[in-house]
Amino acid sequence: MSITVIINGANGKMGSVAVNAIANEKDLQLIAKTTRGDDLFKIIKNHHPDVVIDFTEPNAAFKNTQIIIEAGSRPVIGTTGFTEKDIQGIEKICKDEKRGAIIAPNFSIGAILMMRYAQDAAKYFPTVEIIEYHHSTKKDKPSGTAKKTVELMKDNVKIRDIPIHSVRLPGIFAEQQVIFGGLGETFVIQDRAIDRSAMMPGLFLCCRKIMTLDRLVYGIENLIS
Amino acid sequence: MSITVIINGANGKMGSVAVNAIANEKDLQLIAKTTRGDDLFKIIKNHHPDVVIDFTEPNAAFKNTQIIIEAGSRPVIGTTGFTEKDIQGIEKICKDEKRGAIIAPNFSIGAILMMRYAQDAAKYFPTVEIIEYHHSTKKDKPSGTAKKTVELMKDNVKIRDIPIHSVRLPGIFAEQQVIFGGLGETFVIQDRAIDRSAMMPGLFLCCRKIMTLDRLVYGIENLIS
Amino acid sequence: MSITVIINGANGKMGSVAVNAIANEKDLQLIAKTTRGDDLFKIIKNHHPDVVIDFTEPNAAFKNTQIIIEAGSRPVIGTTGFTEKDIQGIEKICKDEKRGAIIAPNFSIGAILMMRYAQDAAKYFPTVEIIEYHHSTKKDKPSGTAKKTVELMKDNVKIRDIPIHSVRLPGIFAEQQVIFGGLGETFVIQDRAIDRSAMMPGLFLCCRKIMTLDRLVYGIENLIS
Amino acid sequence: MSITVIINGANGKMGSVAVNAIANEKDLQLIAKTTRGDDLFKIIKNHHPDVVIDFTEPNAAFKNTQIIIEAGSRPVIGTTGFTEKDIQGIEKICKDEKRGAIIAPNFSIGAILMMRYAQDAAKYFPTVEIIEYHHSTKKDKPSGTAKKTVELMKDNVKIRDIPIHSVRLPGIFAEQQVIFGGLGETFVIQDRAIDRSAMMPGLFLCCRKIMTLDRLVYGIENLIS
Repeated sequence: MSITVIINGANGKMGSVAVNAIANEKDLQLIAKTTRGDDLFKIIKNHHPDVVIDFTEPNAAFKNTQIIIEAGSRPVIGTTGFTEKDIQGIEKICKDEKRGAIIAPNFSIGAILMMRYAQDAAKYFPTVEIIEYHHSTKKDKPSGTAKKTVELMKDNVKIRDIPIHSVRLPGIFAEQQVIFGGLGETFVIQDRAIDRSAMMPGLFLCCRKIMTLDRLVYGIENLIS
Repeated sequence: MSITVIINGANGKMGSVAVNAIANEKDLQLIAKTTRGDDLFKIIKNHHPDVVIDFTEPNAAFKNTQIIIEAGSRPVIGTTGFTEKDIQGIEKICKDEKRGAIIAPNFSIGAILMMRYAQDAAKYFPTVEIIEYHHSTKKDKPSGTAKKTVELMKDNVKIRDIPIHSVRLPGIFAEQQVIFGGLGETFVIQDRAIDRSAMMPGLFLCCRKIMTLDRLVYGIENLIS
Repeated sequence: MSITVIINGANGKMGSVAVNAIANEKDLQLIAKTTRGDDLFKIIKNHHPDVVIDFTEPNAAFKNTQIIIEAGSRPVIGTTGFTEKDIQGIEKICKDEKRGAIIAPNFSIGAILMMRYAQDAAKYFPTVEIIEYHHSTKKDKPSGTAKKTVELMKDNVKIRDIPIHSVRLPGIFAEQQVIFGGLGETFVIQDRAIDRSAMMPGLFLCCRKIMTLDRLVYGIENLIS
Repeated sequence: MSITVIINGANGKMGSVAVNAIANEKDLQLIAKTTRGDDLFKIIKNHHPDVVIDFTEPNAAFKNTQIIIEAGSRPVIGTTGFTEKDIQGIEKICKDEKRGAIIAPNFSIGAILMMRYAQDAAKYFPTVEIIEYHHSTKKDKPSGTAKKTVELMKDNVKIRDIPIHSVRLPGIFAEQQVIFGGLGETFVIQDRAIDRSAMMPGLFLCCRKIMTLDRLVYGIENLIS
């Protein structure tokens, strides 16, 4: 039996990629698409999806999460717009309802592994530098992933100062290199995406893993053992 | 107090690099250098080194290991020329004497981490390919590291066929890329050495770790938690 | 005044990318889109475009080229399906009509420059290898660009055997590395595309250059001095 | 008949590499090595070398050049320590004597080609960035090669601001990437050296080319057509 899914925000950049990609997943069945203006609660009540993927705006995400749980489904939320208090609120609802929920600022499995291995490798090399490459339209620099990678590495004692260099060029979607330097040797962990489809394997992993959860999981690094 | 070291095979390619590099390690003290023709047993008996590093030929390695232990020191052996029976023999001597010994076919910490992360990442990506680059004078292909990396990855279920491509060009010392491909994303783990000094941090790690060992350790992956 | 353009095959993979991209080019004006079933001759007669871009099938390309010229416009053809005789036929028509026409198997300016520099660099290095990376759905290997690059380099005397290695992985659109090896040094020329938009700058260059041509040009390398 | 060579500064870092490397060049014959304290003029007079390679200090280079020419030989000088006036002085002597002389701040053929192709490619891409990687002991940044590459590219109109990023890590000898970004495409020219031997092919090219020169050539880019 397949896992039934509604995609909320199906017309957006990520939503539309997800709509196309889910068609190739045999165990996942898209049963409805919703967009701004639809009555999400009612549609969930009508369709009884196992999972609702939400790719709407950060400031709608908290309310949507509540709606999805109240309507009886499991939310997979792809946004960064949650306060600490929002998350605690969702944690409580999930606990009370014994309901699974996943919030993931980044669905890229490659990015998660890069951060994990970088954190470990930092124990063994005296120096490291991050170079991250994004499209010239990206407004912030350094990227959130680069900052988080530094955060994870800096507790590993040897390495003190960790430079981040941000390249912004057309012709690039997203790439990060973590470059460790030791005597006579460089060691590089690199993740490169060419488009938003890179987020799909992580997203679909969430749709599968959520079925056996009874609590909120924040960050897909906590789903990957 | 520093750890006292003798380097056997001090005139060879690796030995001479080790002689130069050890001078920068404050806690390691080189107290003698030996070469073909020297009476290794006698020199160890005279100098009482904590550790003897051996970079001689594969076919001398087993005998040297025995000599080092019998003379009362701890062997750090950088060669691949041991049979299964040789290793069992050394294991037994070490156990009887409660003596530490380390045999390492590869002292590169980067190579060890690359294999470790590649083995783990193989769980998350459907396809992978290895490209290894070595100097055009390298005789074998694919490299031992490439073959071992495939061996480690192949049990992780998704990935079936793992191509290895070997590039042989002047102007390269040693490099390996493990390139995972998933939907919209590539994930690369790369280790590149520019000369033999890349082996030194792993070698010196052995000299430190051996002091608290009471058995044989084969492969530095077993020293890196 | 802007150059008026019709895109034939506007619903295809390349055609639809061209339709989107041309909107950002101030001096180019898309005045009609045509697809299979449309009467191309009639539409050109009605709209008088300066240029007709054709992204239809190889086996329709020769006939379309004739139609475009006969209807009074200038063809920019992005396909490889021309025989030597077809090309001679078009050359003759263009000469008779003093009409510009461009046929380009590859609109990527990066690919053209890569081949040009590789051809030149081959004079200075003793060895070279090509590694080309494409999506796992690409059927042929090695790629046409890799084969053409070898063709261009092989006359430069020093280099004898030129290996091509083809990597096929998901998560890659198209990439080629030409890796030269000399004493202590590697020299690499690399072109990487993340999607079909990489063809657009070369395509639009053709639309501009064709306005001053009075003959057929085959290959955009002949438009880039 | 081979070209006879003296290496002045034969004990220095570059000089000793040159002494080793010249042994593999069949048409070049090392007939003497000189170091600080030797009477260079006398030794040249005694040995009549076709060419004298000078790898001494910048502040000795001008005087050595004069000595080499006066003693009847041809100087190949690998240093950057010449003033404009020095160069004019040598130009005049060479012209008067119809003698060949070469001064080269950089003997890397890869670096020369990288700069040449980067200058050309700058005509075709809207943006570019340089990332140069050197050993952490290198004092200056950005490197001289990076600055010169920018200088060469900036006249090609499209490109305005050209960032240079300098990575300083152990485990690297010298590398530069010139990364062009266009719509959907990146184009990279990369030169990587693993040790000083990378300078040898350019150095030996000078020894051959100088035999047919009757004037001063500054920079090996002027020897490579």
